[in-house]
Amino acid sequence: MEFSANQIAGLVGGSVEGDGNVTVSTFAKIEEGHPGAISFLANPKYTHYIYDTQSSIILVNRTFEPEKPINATLIRVDDPYATVAQLLDMVSKLTQQHPCGVEQPSYIGSGVELSPDCYLGAFSYVAPGAKIGKNVKIYPQCYIGAGVVIGDGSVLYPGVKVYYGCKIGKNCILHSGVVVGADGFGFAPKDGSYAKIPQLGHVEIADDVEIGANTCVDRATMGCTRIGRGVKLDNLIQVAHNCEIGEHTVMASQAGVAGSTKVGAHCMVGGQVGFAGHIHIGDGVQIGAQSGVPHNVASGQRIMGYPAVPAGDFFRQSVNIKNLGELNRKVRQLESELERIKSEK
Amino acid sequence: MEFSANQIAGLVGGSVEGDGNVTVSTFAKIEEGHPGAISFLANPKYTHYIYDTQSSIILVNRTFEPEKPINATLIRVDDPYATVAQLLDMVSKLTQQHPCGVEQPSYIGSGVELSPDCYLGAFSYVAPGAKIGKNVKIYPQCYIGAGVVIGDGSVLYPGVKVYYGCKIGKNCILHSGVVVGADGFGFAPKDGSYAKIPQLGHVEIADDVEIGANTCVDRATMGCTRIGRGVKLDNLIQVAHNCEIGEHTVMASQAGVAGSTKVGAHCMVGGQVGFAGHIHIGDGVQIGAQSGVPHNVASGQRIMGYPAVPAGDFFRQSVNIKNLGELNRKVRQLESELERIKSEK
Amino acid sequence: MEFSANQIAGLVGGSVEGDGNVTVSTFAKIEEGHPGAISFLANPKYTHYIYDTQSSIILVNRTFEPEKPINATLIRVDDPYATVAQLLDMVSKLTQQHPCGVEQPSYIGSGVELSPDCYLGAFSYVAPGAKIGKNVKIYPQCYIGAGVVIGDGSVLYPGVKVYYGCKIGKNCILHSGVVVGADGFGFAPKDGSYAKIPQLGHVEIADDVEIGANTCVDRATMGCTRIGRGVKLDNLIQVAHNCEIGEHTVMASQAGVAGSTKVGAHCMVGGQVGFAGHIHIGDGVQIGAQSGVPHNVASGQRIMGYPAVPAGDFFRQSVNIKNLGELNRKVRQLESELERIKSEK
Repeated sequence: MEFSANQIAGLVGGSVEGDGNVTVSTFAKIEEGHPGAISFLANPKYTHYIYDTQSSIILVNRTFEPEKPINATLIRVDDPYATVAQLLDMVSKLTQQHPCGVEQPSYIGSGVELSPDCYLGAFSYVAPGAKIGKNVKIYPQCYIGAGVVIGDGSVLYPGVKVYYGCKIGKNCILHSGVVVGADGFGFAPKDGSYAKIPQLGHVEIADDVEIGANTCVDRATMGCTRIGRGVKLDNLIQVAHNCEIGEHTVMASQAGVAGSTKVGAHCMVGGQVGFAGHIHIGDGVQIGAQSGVPHNVASGQRIMGYPAVPAGDFFRQSVNIKNLGELNRKVRQLESELERIKSEK
Repeated sequence: MEFSANQIAGLVGGSVEGDGNVTVSTFAKIEEGHPGAISFLANPKYTHYIYDTQSSIILVNRTFEPEKPINATLIRVDDPYATVAQLLDMVSKLTQQHPCGVEQPSYIGSGVELSPDCYLGAFSYVAPGAKIGKNVKIYPQCYIGAGVVIGDGSVLYPGVKVYYGCKIGKNCILHSGVVVGADGFGFAPKDGSYAKIPQLGHVEIADDVEIGANTCVDRATMGCTRIGRGVKLDNLIQVAHNCEIGEHTVMASQAGVAGSTKVGAHCMVGGQVGFAGHIHIGDGVQIGAQSGVPHNVASGQRIMGYPAVPAGDFFRQSVNIKNLGELNRKVRQLESELERIKSEK
Repeated sequence: MEFSANQIAGLVGGSVEGDGNVTVSTFAKIEEGHPGAISFLANPKYTHYIYDTQSSIILVNRTFEPEKPINATLIRVDDPYATVAQLLDMVSKLTQQHPCGVEQPSYIGSGVELSPDCYLGAFSYVAPGAKIGKNVKIYPQCYIGAGVVIGDGSVLYPGVKVYYGCKIGKNCILHSGVVVGADGFGFAPKDGSYAKIPQLGHVEIADDVEIGANTCVDRATMGCTRIGRGVKLDNLIQVAHNCEIGEHTVMASQAGVAGSTKVGAHCMVGGQVGFAGHIHIGDGVQIGAQSGVPHNVASGQRIMGYPAVPAGDFFRQSVNIKNLGELNRKVRQLESELERIKSEK
């Protein structure tokens, strides 16, 4: 499929600058542009690429002011990142289709029903009593435990494992290697060793949640571990037993949430952040990458560091630490000057 | 099944306070209590929930002194957490049963024998020469390499992979996505690139070990990587080649142990802790979350930080760092006062 | 198979010291030596083991000077670590052979051809249009998406998942649980929730790459995520969408690279290191474990810390932080002395 700059501008409500008849058939990063591709410029760090890119069309902000001539045709829009998302979405819907039907061999336990628009890939296992919604796509090598409920329109990529009794909402996406409902990490000390505390709760994942590859969400000891509506978890994240993640919170890769901690709604959590157990994070909290969060955090805070402090304090601390050598020098100088003053008396 | 407060108190040696005839049929977290559920209060952070919880019965410490009236029936015990563990265990044994028998299709190599009480889930693969103990439960989609030994009573949840030649003890639990025996990360620099050092050792996991979802234990270069008896590893942990983890050590999620490091017995390791390679950690060491441990640690130490120092020092350091702005101010003031003194002379 | 010290010395160009006729049939770590085993001494930390080890032969450096008598036969070589690697490689080639042929049940989509020297393990799935090179070994329970290309001689251990359209080079090794090509973590804020940005790019992995267990390499939004020739990634690593990792860079376990970051060639990255997104790391950069890298790094730098600074500065900072208590004491003393001076005037 080919689209001209004029056609694309029409679709996205943009204005063309340059040759409106030039056509593209694919996307490219601006720094890897090539003829026939459309790119976008949203992050100012990449501005210098626009003057040399070989892409035929570039989506730019309406306010963008080039400092040099640009070969590509520009399409000016309000928000280039949102616009490219919109275009990717259109193309994705045209070109990407999940399969349908039940591939063999697969394992379907007693009492399981699959609607004809569902997909069950080969080597997938659906245990007895699981309830699979309409248009659910279960790729090969997935495991759906007994009594699991999966809502309409959800997609499980190859190798997802969902332990018994857990619930996945509608229109969720679980990537390869995700484990939902493994036992929480609970042990009681007993005579110098540890006795396992059975984890009899489960996991409930609300609608519109996406969970990245190899991320783990453990089942609760009792009751449930909850992932709120619209939450987006990146790869290799740990959500421990009894946790709750509030609606529309996003968490970057390798973050870890210890047991029973409640993270509010609309939070943004950086990569490799760690949360202590049994704490409460308010709504709209933003946490810088690699931070360690040892205690409760009020709504709306922006924090960073190990242990985490307000972001402004963190940056001041970093500068202060950098300047410690100079501070030591000053104190030594003060000491020697004071010595001199005392000796002169 | 329903149990009355009197019945439960009899089972666990507790004393009833309130209506002894009230019955429960399930567990609930105290903050999510509902009629018909039993909850417990062990962590003082949760004390305020006891006055409003809807649960019918609460397990509390014998010494607990309520500050307000409580609706629920109380059962007083020595250790509420241990008691709830005991009750969960009773219920778990009554209600949860692993399946038996060999599901089809599965793959059983030559020379493999399975006792009738074993379970081999569909799509699991047992390579030739593997030795599977009595009452072993291998859920679907597991891989058991050639010559692997699995001790009596162990459970492998869906999708566990055990490479050739590794040994798993008795009564172990391996959760989904665990990888035992992948090649250690060993390369020798050679002409600007890296030559792979074959990893010809294996992994030995002793009895009563539990390993969390997606955790990796690499095979040794030579000899073996050892996980001691009773060790509990949480999810997404890395144990590199040639490591040894001592008996009854517990390690929280996303911790990582670099190659050849030996961690002692009865240690407690926080989440996201990292250990350098080729170091030795003594017995009974406690390490705070996200710490980086660059060198040997003597037995019984409690350490924290990056790099890790004794926990008391870490907290003092954190306070000192917080106060650096104030210290800078003081030094500036001393400088200006000294200037004044010098100029006044 | 048994080899004498004289035979081994001949193979590796070493000189024998002690009984040249003593034979060995296996390898052992020096601290776990036993008769009939060969060990090596490369890391000076392990020198004290050489006087007591039960191993029959020890590979040591030509310059090694024992301080006490040694029971074992020594073979002196230029580089004991490289020599043991060479010996392990020889043994590995003699003893370890990947299987051949197609096991049943497996799933092979339309248009897929496998050469007779390939292995496709049971329960593996190869989607339509995938191109599998010569002598490729795909262990059980792998998923190869539509149109995936796998170069000659590559090995995929059990449970590897490769999403559609991704490319794996020649002689690559992917360990169990690796996920290549899951969707990058891309969302556009929209009315208080997040709209998914389809990830239409792919992943390209060059030749001679090894990827550790449960590591994730996400597909690009557009274009591709690139892993350069000879790169070695350890377990549980995250490589986000649109990243590039340069040739012969090695990265230890649990490191994470955020989106669009480019890491140069010949870098050495410690465990649990985190990289911010959209930054550029030069060639030959060395980064200490657990560092957080927030911005561009020039080639050849050696950095460490959170946030990362030149390694020398990091160690100075750590000492300065340790000494903060003393610095506080000094400043308090200066203050009181100055008070005294002022009062004496």
